[in-house]
Amino acid sequence: MLSYQQARDWLLERARPLSARQILLLAQIHGRVLAEPVRAALDVPPHDNSSMDGYALRCADFAAAMPVSQRIAAGAASQPLQPGSAARIFTGAPIPPGADAVIMQEQAQLDADGKVSFAAAPRPGQNIRLRGEDIANGQEILPAGRRLTAADLGLAASIGLAALPVLQPLRVAVFFTGDELVEPGQPLAAGQIYNSNRYWLLPALRQLGCETIDLGAVRDDLDATRRLLRDAAAAADVVITCGGVSVGEEDHVKAAVEAEGELTLWTVAIKPGKPLACGRIGDADFIGLPGNPVSGFVTLQTLVRPFLQKRMGLPLAEQAIQRYPAAFAWPKPDARRSEFLRVRRTLTDEGWQLELYPQQSSGALTSCAWADGLAWLEPGQTVAPGDSLRYWALDLA
Amino acid sequence: MLSYQQARDWLLERARPLSARQILLLAQIHGRVLAEPVRAALDVPPHDNSSMDGYALRCADFAAAMPVSQRIAAGAASQPLQPGSAARIFTGAPIPPGADAVIMQEQAQLDADGKVSFAAAPRPGQNIRLRGEDIANGQEILPAGRRLTAADLGLAASIGLAALPVLQPLRVAVFFTGDELVEPGQPLAAGQIYNSNRYWLLPALRQLGCETIDLGAVRDDLDATRRLLRDAAAAADVVITCGGVSVGEEDHVKAAVEAEGELTLWTVAIKPGKPLACGRIGDADFIGLPGNPVSGFVTLQTLVRPFLQKRMGLPLAEQAIQRYPAAFAWPKPDARRSEFLRVRRTLTDEGWQLELYPQQSSGALTSCAWADGLAWLEPGQTVAPGDSLRYWALDLA
Repeated sequence: MLSYQQARDWLLERARPLSARQILLLAQIHGRVLAEPVRAALDVPPHDNSSMDGYALRCADFAAAMPVSQRIAAGAASQPLQPGSAARIFTGAPIPPGADAVIMQEQAQLDADGKVSFAAAPRPGQNIRLRGEDIANGQEILPAGRRLTAADLGLAASIGLAALPVLQPLRVAVFFTGDELVEPGQPLAAGQIYNSNRYWLLPALRQLGCETIDLGAVRDDLDATRRLLRDAAAAADVVITCGGVSVGEEDHVKAAVEAEGELTLWTVAIKPGKPLACGRIGDADFIGLPGNPVSGFVTLQTLVRPFLQKRMGLPLAEQAIQRYPAAFAWPKPDARRSEFLRVRRTLTDEGWQLELYPQQSSGALTSCAWADGLAWLEPGQTVAPGDSLRYWALDLA
Repeated sequence: MLSYQQARDWLLERARPLSARQILLLAQIHGRVLAEPVRAALDVPPHDNSSMDGYALRCADFAAAMPVSQRIAAGAASQPLQPGSAARIFTGAPIPPGADAVIMQEQAQLDADGKVSFAAAPRPGQNIRLRGEDIANGQEILPAGRRLTAADLGLAASIGLAALPVLQPLRVAVFFTGDELVEPGQPLAAGQIYNSNRYWLLPALRQLGCETIDLGAVRDDLDATRRLLRDAAAAADVVITCGGVSVGEEDHVKAAVEAEGELTLWTVAIKPGKPLACGRIGDADFIGLPGNPVSGFVTLQTLVRPFLQKRMGLPLAEQAIQRYPAAFAWPKPDARRSEFLRVRRTLTDEGWQLELYPQQSSGALTSCAWADGLAWLEPGQTVAPGDSLRYWALDLA
């Protein structure tokens, strides 16, 4: 058996980051991976401008009442300030050459003779945002390898960039094996079960940022499985299956991958989880998740996800593990395997605590749908109420 | 000025949850809001089945070596067990009538005479998953008002549901005002700025689960703004603009909304943030965000988001506020406004701490792109290093 950390390291070592890039418009790349750093090619703000609606003037010329010599709207250009005058100015409008302060309109009053009178004298620089104050020309504003957020896209737009270089999305082809599998909506004969893996795996991969290719279910037949594997490997960067990689003799996936490429079978010391198959077919990676939906779900979140993220070109980041006190006891841990208990954060009088889903042994996804995270126990770790536990957020929801 | 809580309550009171529903296939509804509770119409597992590859037998008949009378693959039907025999069985396959335990294959050996011999005697029920053990017929498995996750979809599939009733998505039309706005990629003349709001607001709304209608920028012209508002209100459930609702006289949005419907202008005691316009045009809600990108971003995350979520049909949930110690000082707070400082969680030797983005006063989105959350201060709240602060995760990223 490999430990969780050994399996993770082994997978990560084999993850070859994508490098092919495309240049796409901002509206197309939310969630995509930035291929190179973005630097500003201008100053923000591009000119000294007013942070208030009010009056721009030169402090040295200040008088309690001053004539208004021009009117500068946001989006307009300004003329040099006439000495001894004030300029009506609006938020974001350029400070006229010669002015060095803005008095906000709440402290100003327009008199009947057209002059403006002020309640207080200004300080130089008051209410002026300086050119380049927010972003300086040449400054790196976004690092390479970043998964682009909404704020990132707004930031790129604010310096005039209409498009950015992003990595191509990771193409993941997925299929499912087992003659007992029936699609939902169909009647269930004796001995059959519904194919639930197809319905959580594809959206989870898309949420991770992968482009998915859904190949559906394949019958337990070696030749059919080999053909599908070849086609999938030609079309995708990674091929993922659920089921068919345990030691049972009905499983043809193992033999098919071995015939078409290479395969390593691991028993990983995690619970739920355990069997994991990894290999290569042509230029594509192969990952065989356990067929049990809960095992597959936890294995994807904890073990395969870091592999896929490195493969997608994202920098390797340690999982941001939080700690919370347990609101439950777990007296009989697995002695040899790390356990990932399905838990939910609950706000109690003593602050946030982890509540345990009662049925941890089940193969049904009820625990995964209920949970918002995993409590990550070391092999043999017992839990008493109040113990501080590692919490792994299930953010691929 | 309204406090944050007053503004939030006012908005929520006016949020009318969507009720129109559609029935859609599982593959179409990741992230959609479930319109009614889902109950199981069958048992999971549907029959007693083996949790291991091995041999099924009746404990009362156990012998150290037994003949193998049938072979039951997953997906196959089973025959009643012949007395005194064992049945070869695979994971997930139905337990044959008459059997009450499974011995895993690692503890069994097939002899030359075709009999199987066992290393240990079984306990009744061993390695058998009982019918209905995971999900009982009639049990509620998903509550109404839930935003459907990948695990939820897998769970629905596992009980044979091919489609679920979901609420229609909230349609949000968005436009931007200000003659100074230029689209990225275009040259910037004096006094102009790039329209950055368009590029963060639309993906943030989509990530929230809204269907967006992008109406682009409108010139500062009353008639054009009124026409656009009417059209937007006819096509969408909510109309959102950025800018045009401050006291400056160049803003026509205020007048246009008042002419076409009703408008309430608030000064909300939050920083960044402050001006917020809310109203109604025909049957659509109107929200006017501040034009400053950082103010708009924070106002959307903290104030408008709960409104939109209730409008989408999601149950009202308190923001899951965490607390972390500050790694910074904030000696000069705003006396009258709640401050939302842009911060990032950083793992230090003393655990997770909140690091402060140095330039909090800026109107540029650099702080929002850098941050992973907001430290939420009360009016007048100073911060010394080590103080425990409320942390609001920026998960609309």
